[in-house]
Amino acid sequence: MKAVNLAEKLALVAGHWDPHVVADFNGHDIMVVRVEGEFPFHDHPDTDDLFLVLEGEIELDVGEETLHLGPGELFVVPKGVRHRPRAKAEARLLLIEPKGTPNTGDPATASAKPRI
Amino acid sequence: MKAVNLAEKLALVAGHWDPHVVADFNGHDIMVVRVEGEFPFHDHPDTDDLFLVLEGEIELDVGEETLHLGPGELFVVPKGVRHRPRAKAEARLLLIEPKGTPNTGDPATASAKPRI
Repeated sequence: MKAVNLAEKLALVAGHWDPHVVADFNGHDIMVVRVEGEFPFHDHPDTDDLFLVLEGEIELDVGEETLHLGPGELFVVPKGVRHRPRAKAEARLLLIEPKGTPNTGDPATASAKPRI
Repeated sequence: MKAVNLAEKLALVAGHWDPHVVADFNGHDIMVVRVEGEFPFHDHPDTDDLFLVLEGEIELDVGEETLHLGPGELFVVPKGVRHRPRAKAEARLLLIEPKGTPNTGDPATASAKPRI
């Protein structure tokens, strides 16, 4: 058993928009991800989507609104609500989603995320 | 809609070992808590238990082992595993548990956590 150091885990992730699993929680993946630029608008019909900023800043377009999130700030996008994360410079996030959730909400893109 | 600033929420919590809900996620409470001293050993037969340290340091006794967690470190105690968080000085944590989970694992202590 070992504590999960999120910064150490993020140092193992090379690319952007590529979530990696660091722990399991009640059938959910606890993930870290590096982001920069714009992700496509999407929604998850069956799950809420939690974003917690660890480093950097993101904009989260949620429906018609835009939220700004900095370090130590989180937002839960309710299931079925269209959203799009954006980051002008690299940001590092913790995400939580049920196992098997497609990144983009499109089941065609669903796959097990890599584990670190 | 508003981002949840965890430090601002923690500033609203007066006591120790008194989790307050800051967001909802898939039937779970996302909570913040200030801790200092020792909590009783307990287990949750029906749920994993996620601890993420935001500020300070804790020891987490898990079964016969003891983990040290500092800021940006997390651990998920699997369901049914006895554990006890301890903090020599005040620490501030993010917790995630299904709604209605008793703090101590004893259903007699279950109650809706206050929301901030």
